[in-house]
Amino acid sequence: MRALIISADGFEDTELLYPLYRLIEEGVPVDIASIKRGNIKGKHGYVVSANLSIEEVVPENYQLLILPGGKAPSILRENPLVLDVVKKFFKENKLIGALCHGPQILVSTGLVANRRMTGYKSIATELKEAGARFEDTEVVIDGNLITSRMPADLPYFMRAIIKALKSAQKEEEL
Amino acid sequence: MRALIISADGFEDTELLYPLYRLIEEGVPVDIASIKRGNIKGKHGYVVSANLSIEEVVPENYQLLILPGGKAPSILRENPLVLDVVKKFFKENKLIGALCHGPQILVSTGLVANRRMTGYKSIATELKEAGARFEDTEVVIDGNLITSRMPADLPYFMRAIIKALKSAQKEEEL
Repeated sequence: MRALIISADGFEDTELLYPLYRLIEEGVPVDIASIKRGNIKGKHGYVVSANLSIEEVVPENYQLLILPGGKAPSILRENPLVLDVVKKFFKENKLIGALCHGPQILVSTGLVANRRMTGYKSIATELKEAGARFEDTEVVIDGNLITSRMPADLPYFMRAIIKALKSAQKEEEL
Repeated sequence: MRALIISADGFEDTELLYPLYRLIEEGVPVDIASIKRGNIKGKHGYVVSANLSIEEVVPENYQLLILPGGKAPSILRENPLVLDVVKKFFKENKLIGALCHGPQILVSTGLVANRRMTGYKSIATELKEAGARFEDTEVVIDGNLITSRMPADLPYFMRAIIKALKSAQKEEEL
Protein backbone atom coordinates (compact mmCIF):
# COMPACT_ATOMS: atom_id res chain seq x y z
CA MET A 1 0.00 0.00 0.00
CA ARG A 2 1.62 3.25 -1.18
CA ALA A 3 0.13 6.61 -2.21
CA LEU A 4 1.16 9.23 -4.77
CA ILE A 5 0.35 12.94 -4.63
CA ILE A 6 0.90 14.91 -7.84
CA SER A 7 1.08 18.68 -7.43
CA ALA A 8 3.08 21.80 -8.33
CA ASP A 9 3.67 25.41 -7.25
CA GLY A 10 0.47 27.18 -6.26
CA PHE A 11 -1.15 24.13 -4.62
CA GLU A 12 -3.92 24.77 -2.10
CA ASP A 13 -1.85 24.17 1.03
CA THR A 14 -4.33 22.26 3.20
CA GLU A 15 -5.49 20.17 0.23
CA LEU A 16 -2.00 18.76 -0.07
CA LEU A 17 -1.00 18.76 3.61
CA TYR A 18 -4.16 17.25 5.09
CA PRO A 19 -4.09 14.16 2.82
CA LEU A 20 -0.29 13.88 3.24
CA TYR A 21 -0.40 13.99 7.05
CA ARG A 22 -3.54 11.86 7.19
CA LEU A 23 -1.94 9.09 5.13
CA ILE A 24 1.22 9.22 7.27
CA GLU A 25 -1.03 9.02 10.35
CA GLU A 26 -2.55 5.87 8.84
CA GLY A 27 0.91 4.39 8.21
CA VAL A 28 0.70 4.68 4.41
CA PRO A 29 3.96 5.78 2.71
CA VAL A 30 3.46 8.75 0.36
CA ASP A 31 5.51 9.99 -2.58
CA ILE A 32 5.06 13.50 -3.92
CA ALA A 33 5.69 14.03 -7.62
CA SER A 34 5.88 17.31 -9.51
CA ILE A 35 7.08 18.52 -12.92
CA LYS A 36 10.58 18.22 -11.49
CA ARG A 37 12.02 17.12 -8.16
CA GLY A 38 12.46 19.68 -5.39
CA ASN A 39 10.48 22.16 -3.37
CA ILE A 40 7.03 23.31 -4.41
CA LYS A 41 5.27 26.22 -2.71
CA GLY A 42 1.59 26.50 -1.85
CA LYS A 43 -0.68 29.53 -2.27
CA HIS A 44 -0.37 30.18 1.46
CA GLY A 45 3.41 29.76 1.52
CA TYR A 46 3.85 26.23 2.83
CA VAL A 47 6.79 24.46 1.17
CA VAL A 48 6.72 20.74 0.43
CA SER A 49 9.47 18.67 -1.15
CA ALA A 50 8.55 16.71 -4.27
CA ASN A 51 10.73 13.61 -3.99
CA LEU A 52 10.00 12.50 -7.56
CA SER A 53 9.82 14.15 -10.97
CA ILE A 54 6.82 13.05 -13.04
CA GLU A 55 9.22 11.13 -15.37
CA GLU A 56 10.30 9.02 -12.42
CA VAL A 57 6.80 7.92 -11.40
CA VAL A 58 6.08 4.20 -11.74
CA PRO A 59 2.26 4.03 -11.46
CA GLU A 60 2.40 0.29 -10.67
CA ASN A 61 3.95 1.18 -7.30
CA TYR A 62 0.79 2.88 -6.01
CA GLN A 63 -2.74 2.01 -4.93
CA LEU A 64 -3.90 5.63 -4.49
CA LEU A 65 -3.45 8.91 -6.37
CA ILE A 66 -4.30 12.28 -4.79
CA LEU A 67 -4.71 15.44 -6.87
CA PRO A 68 -4.96 18.54 -4.63
CA GLY A 69 -6.35 21.84 -5.91
CA GLY A 70 -5.19 25.44 -6.02
CA LYS A 71 -3.40 26.82 -9.06
CA ALA A 72 -1.25 23.69 -9.57
CA PRO A 73 -3.81 21.74 -11.66
CA SER A 74 -3.86 24.43 -14.40
CA ILE A 75 -0.14 23.73 -14.97
CA LEU A 76 -0.33 19.96 -14.50
CA ARG A 77 -3.23 19.42 -16.93
CA GLU A 78 -1.04 20.74 -19.76
CA ASN A 79 1.68 18.15 -19.07
CA PRO A 80 1.38 14.95 -21.19
CA LEU A 81 3.44 12.91 -18.70
CA VAL A 82 1.07 13.87 -15.87
CA LEU A 83 -1.92 12.89 -18.00
CA ASP A 84 -0.28 9.54 -18.88
CA VAL A 85 0.18 8.72 -15.19
CA VAL A 86 -3.38 9.73 -14.29
CA LYS A 87 -4.79 7.71 -17.21
CA LYS A 88 -2.96 4.61 -15.94
CA PHE A 89 -4.64 4.97 -12.53
CA PHE A 90 -8.01 5.38 -14.27
CA LYS A 91 -7.57 2.40 -16.58
CA GLU A 92 -6.40 0.08 -13.83
CA ASN A 93 -9.36 1.16 -11.70
CA LYS A 94 -7.09 2.36 -8.89
CA LEU A 95 -8.29 4.77 -6.23
CA ILE A 96 -8.13 8.43 -7.33
CA GLY A 97 -8.97 11.35 -5.01
CA ALA A 98 -9.19 14.85 -6.46
CA LEU A 99 -10.58 18.04 -4.99
CA CYS A 100 -11.14 21.73 -5.69
CA HIS A 101 -9.36 22.41 -9.04
CA GLY A 102 -7.75 18.93 -8.99
CA PRO A 103 -10.57 17.43 -11.12
CA GLN A 104 -9.46 19.71 -14.00
CA ILE A 105 -6.58 17.26 -14.52
CA LEU A 106 -9.11 14.44 -14.79
CA VAL A 107 -11.07 16.43 -17.40
CA SER A 108 -7.90 16.71 -19.50
CA THR A 109 -7.48 12.91 -19.50
CA GLY A 110 -10.76 12.71 -21.42
CA LEU A 111 -12.01 9.96 -19.12
CA VAL A 112 -14.69 11.63 -16.99
CA ALA A 113 -17.75 11.12 -19.23
CA ASN A 114 -20.66 9.75 -17.20
CA ARG A 115 -18.65 9.79 -13.97
CA ARG A 116 -20.36 11.17 -10.86
CA MET A 117 -18.07 13.93 -9.59
CA THR A 118 -17.72 17.21 -7.78
CA GLY A 119 -15.12 19.99 -7.71
CA TYR A 120 -14.71 23.68 -6.98
CA LYS A 121 -17.81 25.64 -8.05
CA SER A 122 -15.91 27.55 -10.75
CA ILE A 123 -15.14 24.29 -12.60
CA ALA A 124 -18.70 22.88 -12.47
CA THR A 125 -19.48 23.96 -16.04
CA GLU A 126 -16.23 22.52 -17.36
CA LEU A 127 -16.93 19.19 -15.65
CA LYS A 128 -20.45 19.05 -17.09
CA GLU A 129 -19.20 19.91 -20.57
CA ALA A 130 -16.76 17.00 -20.30
CA GLY A 131 -19.73 14.73 -19.67
CA ALA A 132 -19.34 14.30 -15.92
CA ARG A 133 -22.45 14.15 -13.73
CA PHE A 134 -21.69 17.05 -11.37
CA GLU A 135 -23.00 16.99 -7.79
CA ASP A 136 -22.69 19.92 -5.38
CA THR A 137 -21.91 17.98 -2.23
CA GLU A 138 -18.97 17.54 0.18
CA VAL A 139 -17.78 14.25 -1.26
CA VAL A 140 -18.82 12.19 -4.27
CA ILE A 141 -17.79 8.53 -4.35
CA ASP A 142 -18.13 6.93 -7.78
CA GLY A 143 -16.37 3.59 -7.64
CA ASN A 144 -12.63 4.27 -7.60
CA LEU A 145 -13.12 8.02 -8.05
CA ILE A 146 -13.52 10.22 -4.96
CA THR A 147 -13.93 13.99 -5.39
CA SER A 148 -14.59 17.00 -3.14
CA ARG A 149 -15.16 20.72 -3.61
CA MET A 150 -12.88 22.67 -1.25
CA PRO A 151 -10.73 22.66 1.92
CA ALA A 152 -13.75 22.51 4.27
CA ASP A 153 -14.67 19.19 2.64
CA LEU A 154 -11.31 17.61 3.60
CA PRO A 155 -12.65 15.67 6.63
CA TYR A 156 -15.29 13.98 4.45
CA PHE A 157 -12.87 13.52 1.54
CA MET A 158 -10.24 11.78 3.65
CA ARG A 159 -12.81 9.76 5.59
CA ALA A 160 -13.94 8.34 2.23
CA ILE A 161 -10.37 7.82 0.98
CA ILE A 162 -9.25 5.99 4.13
CA LYS A 163 -12.35 3.80 4.07
CA ALA A 164 -11.75 2.91 0.40
CA LEU A 165 -8.04 2.25 1.06
CA LYS A 166 -8.86 -0.12 3.91
CA SER A 167 -11.37 -1.93 1.76
CA ALA A 168 -8.80 -2.23 -1.08
CA GLN A 169 -6.26 -3.51 1.44
CA LYS A 170 -8.68 -6.20 2.66
CA GLU A 171 -9.24 -7.36 -0.93
CA GLU A 172 -5.47 -7.58 -1.47
CA GLU A 173 -5.18 -9.77 1.61
CA LEU A 174 -7.96 -12.15 0.51
CA MET B 1 -17.59 13.39 23.32
CA ARG B 2 -16.83 17.00 22.37
CA ALA B 3 -13.55 18.85 21.76
CA LEU B 4 -12.41 22.41 22.37
CA ILE B 5 -9.68 24.28 20.50
CA ILE B 6 -8.42 27.51 22.09
CA SER B 7 -6.48 29.82 19.79
CA ALA B 8 -6.15 33.42 18.58
CA ASP B 9 -4.75 35.51 15.71
CA GLY B 10 -1.36 34.30 14.53
CA PHE B 11 -2.07 30.59 15.02
CA GLU B 12 0.05 28.13 13.06
CA ASP B 13 -2.49 27.32 10.38
CA THR B 14 -1.99 23.57 9.97
CA GLU B 15 -1.72 23.08 13.74
CA LEU B 16 -5.28 24.33 14.11
CA LEU B 17 -6.73 23.02 10.83
CA TYR B 18 -5.31 19.48 10.94
CA PRO B 19 -6.74 18.70 14.41
CA LEU B 20 -10.03 20.47 13.52
CA TYR B 21 -10.56 18.55 10.27
CA ARG B 22 -9.27 15.31 11.80
CA LEU B 23 -11.77 15.49 14.67
CA ILE B 24 -14.62 16.28 12.26
CA GLU B 25 -13.47 13.30 10.17
CA GLU B 26 -13.78 11.19 13.34
CA GLY B 27 -17.29 12.54 14.00
CA VAL B 28 -16.26 14.54 17.09
CA PRO B 29 -17.96 17.96 17.37
CA VAL B 30 -15.45 20.79 17.90
CA ASP B 31 -15.86 24.27 19.38
CA ILE B 32 -13.26 26.96 18.77
CA ALA B 33 -12.79 29.55 21.50
CA SER B 34 -10.73 32.74 21.36
CA ILE B 35 -10.43 35.94 23.39
CA LYS B 36 -13.63 37.02 21.72
CA ARG B 37 -16.02 35.43 19.23
CA GLY B 38 -15.40 35.90 15.52
CA ASN B 39 -12.75 35.31 12.90
CA ILE B 40 -9.15 34.63 13.81
CA LYS B 41 -6.39 34.62 11.20
CA GLY B 42 -3.42 32.26 10.97
CA LYS B 43 0.20 33.12 10.18
CA HIS B 44 -0.35 31.81 6.65
CA GLY B 45 -3.62 33.66 6.14
CA TYR B 46 -6.22 30.97 6.79
CA VAL B 47 -9.29 32.37 8.58
CA VAL B 48 -11.23 30.31 11.11
CA SER B 49 -14.33 31.37 13.01
CA ALA B 50 -14.15 31.18 16.81
CA ASN B 51 -17.72 30.29 17.77
CA LEU B 52 -17.14 30.99 21.47
CA SER B 53 -15.45 33.68 23.52
CA ILE B 54 -13.30 32.34 26.34
CA GLU B 55 -15.89 33.67 28.86
CA GLU B 56 -18.50 31.44 27.26
CA VAL B 57 -16.50 28.20 27.61
CA VAL B 58 -17.98 25.58 29.93
CA PRO B 59 -15.08 23.14 30.46
CA GLU B 60 -17.46 20.43 31.69
CA ASN B 61 -18.79 20.14 28.12
CA TYR B 62 -15.52 18.77 26.75
CA GLN B 63 -13.39 15.63 26.90
CA LEU B 64 -10.48 17.07 24.88
CA LEU B 65 -8.63 20.41 24.70
CA ILE B 66 -6.30 21.27 21.79
CA LEU B 67 -3.79 24.14 22.00
CA PRO B 68 -2.22 24.84 18.57
CA GLY B 69 1.01 26.82 18.21
CA GLY B 70 2.14 29.83 16.25
CA LYS B 71 2.04 33.31 17.77
CA ALA B 72 -1.36 32.80 19.42
CA PRO B 73 -0.06 31.15 22.64
CA SER B 74 1.99 34.25 23.57
CA ILE B 75 -1.29 36.22 23.74
CA LEU B 76 -3.36 33.46 25.30
CA ARG B 77 -0.93 32.69 28.14
CA GLU B 78 -1.44 36.24 29.45
CA ASN B 79 -5.20 35.77 29.71
CA PRO B 80 -6.41 34.63 33.17
CA LEU B 81 -9.66 33.23 31.78
CA VAL B 82 -7.73 31.05 29.34
CA LEU B 83 -5.51 29.80 32.16
CA ASP B 84 -8.57 29.02 34.32
CA VAL B 85 -10.07 26.89 31.57
CA VAL B 86 -6.80 25.03 30.91
CA LYS B 87 -6.31 24.42 34.65
CA LYS B 88 -9.76 22.82 34.85
CA PHE B 89 -8.81 20.35 32.11
CA PHE B 90 -5.57 19.58 33.97
CA LYS B 91 -7.22 19.11 37.34
CA GLU B 92 -9.97 16.88 36.02
CA ASN B 93 -7.36 14.80 34.20
CA LYS B 94 -8.97 15.42 30.84
CA LEU B 95 -7.13 14.91 27.58
CA ILE B 96 -4.97 17.90 26.58
CA GLY B 97 -3.05 18.12 23.30
CA ALA B 98 -0.60 20.98 22.76
CA LEU B 99 2.06 21.48 20.12
CA CYS B 100 4.75 23.89 18.93
CA HIS B 101 4.30 27.04 21.08
CA GLY B 102 1.02 25.72 22.54
CA PRO B 103 2.79 24.23 25.60
CA GLN B 104 3.71 27.82 26.65
CA ILE B 105 0.11 28.15 27.82
CA LEU B 106 0.58 25.03 29.94
CA VAL B 107 3.75 26.54 31.47
CA SER B 108 1.73 29.59 32.52
CA THR B 109 -0.76 27.40 34.40
CA GLY B 110 2.10 26.37 36.70
CA LEU B 111 1.11 22.73 36.40
CA VAL B 112 3.83 21.18 34.22
CA ALA B 113 6.39 20.25 36.91
CA ASN B 114 7.59 16.67 36.44
CA ARG B 115 5.43 16.18 33.35
CA ARG B 116 7.04 14.50 30.33
CA MET B 117 6.54 16.94 27.45
CA THR B 118 7.81 18.31 24.18
CA GLY B 119 7.28 21.54 22.22
CA TYR B 120 8.95 23.77 19.66
CA LYS B 121 12.73 23.79 20.10
CA SER B 122 12.78 27.48 21.03
CA ILE B 123 10.64 26.79 24.13
CA ALA B 124 12.67 23.78 25.38
CA THR B 125 14.54 25.87 27.97
CA GLU B 126 11.35 27.46 29.22
CA LEU B 127 9.70 24.06 29.62
CA LYS B 128 12.69 22.70 31.53
CA GLU B 129 12.81 25.76 33.79
CA ALA B 130 9.15 25.15 34.63
CA GLY B 131 10.11 21.66 35.80
CA ALA B 132 8.90 19.69 32.79
CA ARG B 133 10.93 16.71 31.58
CA PHE B 134 11.56 17.79 27.98
CA GLU B 135 11.93 15.17 25.23
CA ASP B 136 12.92 15.98 21.65
CA THR B 137 10.62 13.56 19.85
CA GLU B 138 7.61 13.72 17.54
CA VAL B 139 5.02 13.03 20.22
CA VAL B 140 5.20 12.65 24.01
CA ILE B 141 2.30 10.94 25.76
CA ASP B 142 2.27 11.47 29.52
CA GLY B 143 -1.06 10.27 30.81
CA ASN B 144 -3.69 12.79 29.75
CA LEU B 145 -1.08 15.16 28.29
CA ILE B 146 -0.05 14.77 24.64
CA THR B 147 2.50 17.18 23.15
CA SER B 148 4.35 17.57 19.84
CA ARG B 149 7.02 19.87 18.41
CA MET B 150 5.88 21.21 15.04
CA PRO B 151 3.60 20.81 12.00
CA ALA B 152 5.52 17.80 10.63
CA ASP B 153 4.63 15.97 13.87
CA LEU B 154 0.87 16.39 13.26
CA PRO B 155 0.31 12.83 11.96
CA TYR B 156 1.84 11.36 15.13
CA PHE B 157 0.15 13.93 17.38
CA MET B 158 -3.33 13.24 16.04
CA ARG B 159 -2.75 9.47 15.90
CA ALA B 160 -2.07 9.63 19.65
CA ILE B 161 -5.01 11.99 20.33
CA ILE B 162 -7.52 9.83 18.42
CA LYS B 163 -6.26 6.69 20.16
CA ALA B 164 -6.60 8.35 23.59
CA LEU B 165 -10.07 9.70 22.71
CA LYS B 166 -11.27 6.25 21.69
CA SER B 167 -9.91 4.77 24.87
CA ALA B 168 -11.64 7.49 26.95
CA GLN B 169 -14.85 6.83 25.04
CA LYS B 170 -14.66 3.11 25.83
CA GLU B 171 -14.21 3.86 29.52
CA GLU B 172 -17.26 6.16 29.42
CA GLU B 173 -19.31 3.34 27.92
CA LEU B 174 -18.25 0.79 30.53
